[in-house]
Amino acid sequence: MLGHIARRLCHLHQISNGLRISNLFQLLFKETRRPVSTMSLWPFSAAMSRDFSQPNSSWSPEMRRVYDHYNALCEVETENGEKTRGPWRKLPSYNRSLKYATGGAYLSKLIQAKARLFTRSVKEQGAAFEYVVFVNKEEKSCVCVFQAGHLLEGAPGHVHGGAIATMIDTVTGTLAGYLSGPVMTANLNIDYRSPMPLGSVVLFHSNLDRIEGRKTFVTCKVTSTDESKLHTEATALFVSINVGHLFGARS
Amino acid sequence: MLGHIARRLCHLHQISNGLRISNLFQLLFKETRRPVSTMSLWPFSAAMSRDFSQPNSSWSPEMRRVYDHYNALCEVETENGEKTRGPWRKLPSYNRSLKYATGGAYLSKLIQAKARLFTRSVKEQGAAFEYVVFVNKEEKSCVCVFQAGHLLEGAPGHVHGGAIATMIDTVTGTLAGYLSGPVMTANLNIDYRSPMPLGSVVLFHSNLDRIEGRKTFVTCKVTSTDESKLHTEATALFVSINVGHLFGARS
Repeated sequence: MLGHIARRLCHLHQISNGLRISNLFQLLFKETRRPVSTMSLWPFSAAMSRDFSQPNSSWSPEMRRVYDHYNALCEVETENGEKTRGPWRKLPSYNRSLKYATGGAYLSKLIQAKARLFTRSVKEQGAAFEYVVFVNKEEKSCVCVFQAGHLLEGAPGHVHGGAIATMIDTVTGTLAGYLSGPVMTANLNIDYRSPMPLGSVVLFHSNLDRIEGRKTFVTCKVTSTDESKLHTEATALFVSINVGHLFGARS
Repeated sequence: MLGHIARRLCHLHQISNGLRISNLFQLLFKETRRPVSTMSLWPFSAAMSRDFSQPNSSWSPEMRRVYDHYNALCEVETENGEKTRGPWRKLPSYNRSLKYATGGAYLSKLIQAKARLFTRSVKEQGAAFEYVVFVNKEEKSCVCVFQAGHLLEGAPGHVHGGAIATMIDTVTGTLAGYLSGPVMTANLNIDYRSPMPLGSVVLFHSNLDRIEGRKTFVTCKVTSTDESKLHTEATALFVSINVGHLFGARS
């Protein structure tokens, strides 16, 4: 039963990086139309309750300003003065995806219980990855506001290339998952143009390039918040998958 | 004075990822031949004292076995029964590079004091990146034994693509820095072939492809420890740099 649910719900990059819970419900119960009493089978751990994409005291004024800008675009005022949904949508973000994931042969119960999403695994606010992803379904694009914490150091005083790659995977994967459903990363090709100082706030701009069968091609640019400085450019390829094997489903 | 030292010592990827302290001394004092009394100007923080590449209780038997294998190759016995240096060399690894790094305009004193190398910033042993890099100067290659902790999750039960990219940057950058001196990552091109379960132990094999002027091209393959399974393939490009600007040196 759980394997059955798991096989159809796992929009990997969506779940990991911030699909709305209500949409997960829709995915879970799209075909079966089960009543809400199936909450007892709710496959998420309690740790999911904190939405990491909410502002916190570690955010710099610049981070808050850019967040407010995009957040305001999520709701617009009509001619009648009524509020309605805007072109952008803010995605929530949790530190755990599914508690029933069993992984492969190596994944012990202990690891399974303690596993946390890489970008949300540090508890101290502001120490590592602070970010919020906004998607624009119509434009098939997303923007991520990112503040680099002090635990992400690579070259002295600057953000590690791997931390930047991690955010590129996260942002492009979120967009690919949002547009194409369950996907996994197949390729990341990253050009590092100029170093990113620790503590800085930058924007990740990601756009759909094209979809070819099971392949979703996405581009990404990392710039200063005023977009005057280019830090990094990347392309990413995601492949749509049947995710049952990740959950150890036997059917 | 410190800026002067900084300008000549920073083999970025070497310092971050494990050059011997004795070699750093040589780099620091190569031209000036200062006496040891200049220890008062020693630009490393006390936090450097723990070598993270030593075995610890979080290592699985598999991790320990592969480590022992390469560690044994660092010292060989001659025909006379004497011990001598082998073809491989184990690199130490610290969680901080330089305490005098000032970064760019964004880097506050507070961030500077708390900054830690991304791959060594989690204190709990076994929770994140457990790894040791061995280099073979003659073969212009290195091998990294890596155990993926539970805080590196991406797809449920599996290692985040960004965590794998981080290790690829670390291992290829260590080799490039070892062979070419101060370098920074210019490109990473990563093909993800098969998912890596959380908790698994894998090998990163990195080889020099070629050096063209300021460019060092390095390849990397990530396999199971018996090398039967290919998880990831990558190429990396590093560019030799004058690192003074990273330290805010003025003269």
